[in-house]
Amino acid sequence: MMSTKEVTQNAIAGIFTPEAVLKHWQGHRGLTRRMIEAFPEDKLFTYSIGGMRPFSVLVYEFLGMAVPSLTGFATDKWQKYAEAEKVSTKEELLALWDQATDDINNIWATIPAERWNEQILAFGQWPGTCTSILFYVIDNEIHHRGQGYVYLRSLGIEPPPFWDRA
Amino acid sequence: MMSTKEVTQNAIAGIFTPEAVLKHWQGHRGLTRRMIEAFPEDKLFTYSIGGMRPFSVLVYEFLGMAVPSLTGFATDKWQKYAEAEKVSTKEELLALWDQATDDINNIWATIPAERWNEQILAFGQWPGTCTSILFYVIDNEIHHRGQGYVYLRSLGIEPPPFWDRA
Repeated sequence: MMSTKEVTQNAIAGIFTPEAVLKHWQGHRGLTRRMIEAFPEDKLFTYSIGGMRPFSVLVYEFLGMAVPSLTGFATDKWQKYAEAEKVSTKEELLALWDQATDDINNIWATIPAERWNEQILAFGQWPGTCTSILFYVIDNEIHHRGQGYVYLRSLGIEPPPFWDRA
Repeated sequence: MMSTKEVTQNAIAGIFTPEAVLKHWQGHRGLTRRMIEAFPEDKLFTYSIGGMRPFSVLVYEFLGMAVPSLTGFATDKWQKYAEAEKVSTKEELLALWDQATDDINNIWATIPAERWNEQILAFGQWPGTCTSILFYVIDNEIHHRGQGYVYLRSLGIEPPPFWDRA
């Protein structure tokens, strides 16, 4: 436990609670899940524009960053940076996604509030605070998911609305 | 000024200071500026995939949300939601961008820390806290900028690296 003085110094200008950030991220992850669902099965694993990666490979990257980063925040033990397990069907990819959703909620609950502003070296190579690394992970998902929106539109498929984070 | 007790209650678990969020956002905005620069002049205003908007029109949306949202946070006065001024050259678009960069820094300095967690109705229609509305604005920029990455790649142009937020 921090003293009241430490809490005040640490957080005097903090504007985003851990609970709000978790909800924010899981809202984005729900949208990414709907993007996976929106892809035709074959296109999910093969479709590309301009030599970019298929959407499934982007999802492996999201999965390879999410739970491993949180595990590092919680334990300060960093596994070698690696992409997630590879699968060959949409159903299996959604199962990996849902497992990560549960894992994120469970690990998050073990991270003390004061941990978020500590300096770390993520995966032994990227310096930042837990907060700044987490937002890199979230922003990377938003960025590449935006790429998926173009894939779907170019296939004539209406993507799920960006504003819906239910 | 808030009392120490109020500060403690408000911010006990806050993990992102206003200063850090401003730096985070301006870092993203610097990357968006490099994306504008990377587009060939004509393609910036005309190029599209799948019926989506050209990158210049996405930039108008970013500009139409950024300073007007901050002005609302600072003053609680909301103008009618509108896209930004239209221009016809890359140079003019970059000038609008740079003006917004300065305006954001100036307005930000007038927003008291305790304001960020207050409930508002952005543009008279979107409920949230100043923080949640701001992150909608930032996330929307990341999302549509990711779309621009596909436009550039499909034109055979290497986009600026996503991780560079200098």
